[in-house]
Amino acid sequence: MNTYYAVIFTSQRTEHDSEMYERMSDKLEELAKTQPGFIRLESIRNNEGFGITISYWESLEAIQNWKDNSTHQAAQQKGKETWYSQYNVQICKVLREFNQN
Amino acid sequence: MNTYYAVIFTSQRTEHDSEMYERMSDKLEELAKTQPGFIRLESIRNNEGFGITISYWESLEAIQNWKDNSTHQAAQQKGKETWYSQYNVQICKVLREFNQN
Repeated sequence: MNTYYAVIFTSQRTEHDSEMYERMSDKLEELAKTQPGFIRLESIRNNEGFGITISYWESLEAIQNWKDNSTHQAAQQKGKETWYSQYNVQICKVLREFNQN
Repeated sequence: MNTYYAVIFTSQRTEHDSEMYERMSDKLEELAKTQPGFIRLESIRNNEGFGITISYWESLEAIQNWKDNSTHQAAQQKGKETWYSQYNVQICKVLREFNQN
């Protein structure tokens, strides 16, 4: 297994600004996929507005570059101010994996 | 930050055996919470049957003990055979975290 990293983002949506949020969320997901070192992304939000997004990256540098991306920075700011009542980010190194297809 | 670990479990449910699955899923969640080294657990499944569960643990030993738990082993077997068409498990070391409450 090659070394890779996971960013776990959990968040509780407020009820503000749904349309803009959805638009920005889709745009950011598409943009993330074009970044150097991006591997894949999985995202779910339930009916109570609690969401988990996990993105996988080849290096910590790739994660830092994505964090610093200007479109992403603007979204992070809106997230803090308006979209999320609470969130957590964890940067993780994947040690082992098991798959069944 | 104390060292801790995350187990990311992503899965696609089949349409089989919903009632038994729900019962076992609830039971396992309660049981996980009583295990030594357990920190917390977050779980979402969407309307298409795709789910993400993240459990956090104090050590790799705690994760191994939970993997080996006999009730959990029985559930893992049912998961492979019946409940999931596809799943992934990643064992991760949390390197950094950011929170906003």
